[in-house]
Amino acid sequence: MDCIFSDKVSGLKGSAIREMFKMMASADIISFAGGSPSPDTFPGDALARIAGDVLTNNSSLALQYGTTEGYPAYLELVRGLCADIIKDSDDVITVSGAQQGIDLIAKVLLNEGDTVICETPSFIGGLNTFRSYGARLCGISLEDDGLNIDELENALKTERNVKLIYTIPTYQNPSGITMSLEKRKRLITLARQYNIRVIEDNPYSDIGWRGDKLPTLKSLDDGDTVLYVGSFSKTLSPGLRVGYLIGDKSVVERAVVCKQVSDVHTSMLPQILTARYFSETCFYEHTKKLSELYKHKCNLMLGLMDEYSPKKVSYTRPEGGLFIWCDLNEDVDTREVLKKSIERKVAFVPGSNFMCDMDKAYSSFRLNFSMMSDENIEKGIKILAEVIK
Amino acid sequence: MDCIFSDKVSGLKGSAIREMFKMMASADIISFAGGSPSPDTFPGDALARIAGDVLTNNSSLALQYGTTEGYPAYLELVRGLCADIIKDSDDVITVSGAQQGIDLIAKVLLNEGDTVICETPSFIGGLNTFRSYGARLCGISLEDDGLNIDELENALKTERNVKLIYTIPTYQNPSGITMSLEKRKRLITLARQYNIRVIEDNPYSDIGWRGDKLPTLKSLDDGDTVLYVGSFSKTLSPGLRVGYLIGDKSVVERAVVCKQVSDVHTSMLPQILTARYFSETCFYEHTKKLSELYKHKCNLMLGLMDEYSPKKVSYTRPEGGLFIWCDLNEDVDTREVLKKSIERKVAFVPGSNFMCDMDKAYSSFRLNFSMMSDENIEKGIKILAEVIK
Repeated sequence: MDCIFSDKVSGLKGSAIREMFKMMASADIISFAGGSPSPDTFPGDALARIAGDVLTNNSSLALQYGTTEGYPAYLELVRGLCADIIKDSDDVITVSGAQQGIDLIAKVLLNEGDTVICETPSFIGGLNTFRSYGARLCGISLEDDGLNIDELENALKTERNVKLIYTIPTYQNPSGITMSLEKRKRLITLARQYNIRVIEDNPYSDIGWRGDKLPTLKSLDDGDTVLYVGSFSKTLSPGLRVGYLIGDKSVVERAVVCKQVSDVHTSMLPQILTARYFSETCFYEHTKKLSELYKHKCNLMLGLMDEYSPKKVSYTRPEGGLFIWCDLNEDVDTREVLKKSIERKVAFVPGSNFMCDMDKAYSSFRLNFSMMSDENIEKGIKILAEVIK
Repeated sequence: MDCIFSDKVSGLKGSAIREMFKMMASADIISFAGGSPSPDTFPGDALARIAGDVLTNNSSLALQYGTTEGYPAYLELVRGLCADIIKDSDDVITVSGAQQGIDLIAKVLLNEGDTVICETPSFIGGLNTFRSYGARLCGISLEDDGLNIDELENALKTERNVKLIYTIPTYQNPSGITMSLEKRKRLITLARQYNIRVIEDNPYSDIGWRGDKLPTLKSLDDGDTVLYVGSFSKTLSPGLRVGYLIGDKSVVERAVVCKQVSDVHTSMLPQILTARYFSETCFYEHTKKLSELYKHKCNLMLGLMDEYSPKKVSYTRPEGGLFIWCDLNEDVDTREVLKKSIERKVAFVPGSNFMCDMDKAYSSFRLNFSMMSDENIEKGIKILAEVIK
């Protein structure tokens, strides 16, 4: 049978990172490529107890159909954690990971050919979602304090059919960069001025060790400009696949209809486990512990890079999240570097994966510091420094 | 901010059934409206034991990211159960309920304006998925032995841009009708002749009490015409949200990319629970018990309808699934009948919800027999008969 795919999907490529993830799952590779939290942080025993209790004593809650909007106790948890950003005109729904939040917003707002403004580099899952709806990506460069706002303003002036601005303002993936307060304010002002909605993708903000905590874009927005997606993937478990979408009722209502025809509702048990775990365990104490662990790992990696990497190599110094962004600052394609590195059993993600034009060569790459043991971080960074030299 | 939704989504309405479901969740209503399995069939204790074990002893399997394609032991289970329909040229992936299987196929194949041929009446979740991609629906009437094949042939000859035929051949939702073997063969022949792919949505076939079990469309197709979606929602638990998609590798490969940008992967724990439960408990013994329960409930309902309903009312006599389809056979809108029925605390779903044109009036409606107790079936059918009179 002739294979005629839809226009929007026919050019779409899968995530090279997830392909790598499969390749490396069984190998003895030191992988700085993934974006997974450390399995040491998973509260398996507590979740075992909760799951045992709910499946034994309330199996029809856990196993029967639920509402598309989400399990009420889970939504209460989210409303509590996000009290400072939820307005009366907003609604909150459960999504199957923040990824689904992005997907639903894209489906609700994007026609084929519309333009989405994004950071470069940015999260491949977000970019691919927009691509999958036939959107055109317009990349804005990142500076040490976030999105280049002048470049953004220029794009808003000149680009056609802009429908969305997509940003990860805090401990960005892949760069680890955090947008300054001033830029956050300017971004909101510009978006309102040009009548463009903003997706604030914020899965990392609870994993951080900055002295101050910057306000979210959503909390700076006194209108309906910002659509906010959050997740428990980095703070509890990514395998459970639970996140949330917060935004103006008019958009969320459409997102609910789209979710209904996508997966009916998010699996009940993961929502129940998340709600009950954080009713027993203080969310802030839990994430403080994770932040200490990741701060240690990040600083360990940065220290080793300071010591071993060639001088021309530059890298970000994140204060949260899971990633460090590096640049070799010379005319080299890090996809080629990866091949050499893999031979020595060390993996990272080449920069091209995070760009609007994935086919071009880039001298940048992403390192993850959350997954590997201290020993492997030390061993891997030394090997990587040798490969780069 | 101006609310400009995408063209494909702006006309989309949510499922009236799921709205009703919310309304009635807390009320003392006898509901024949839902499509939920009986909670008495949920093996809560066994799943509690399995969840406790895996979360205690293998938390990083249950809580870490998994692959988009699915958890290997779950896929093995599906490959075992569907051994007769999986070809070497096929692939199998996990989906978050059969609904997501339909959604992914739609996204992979449909451009806005394409036509999907469906049964009338048909599953509202399927129809709404196609609508959400901007597809046009072309409805083909159902006869006692399934799709009117002459009408289908005529539509294939005359309709433009037909991309898909969507059918639930076995114990159809909402009608309970099963397509005859002869029609199954003719459907495959026609689809191949016109080079149109078929979605076989088959969530009910394991819940049945027919003497013979008809072959699936997929098993009758020696090419790559049929894309098959299945589910454990009716055989184990709908709240877990686990299903599967089986089809030609070329289509499934694209579906994996679309799933990646939709929810990354299906929650791990539900896949693990399903795989382990059916490694301990024989699937066929488990579903035989369910089938006996539902046969009893269906026959109870049919017997009461034979006794109490007015003569002009006609209804199907299903041999499986969860639904009976009724027609008042007079010029009356069952949405109006529902209002009266709700006053007397009995609910059903009016026929218009299952039609291509949801705004028109229909004299038909759907009854579910799986959810209510025997007492409530008796009480509810008697009240309904009075309301109809």
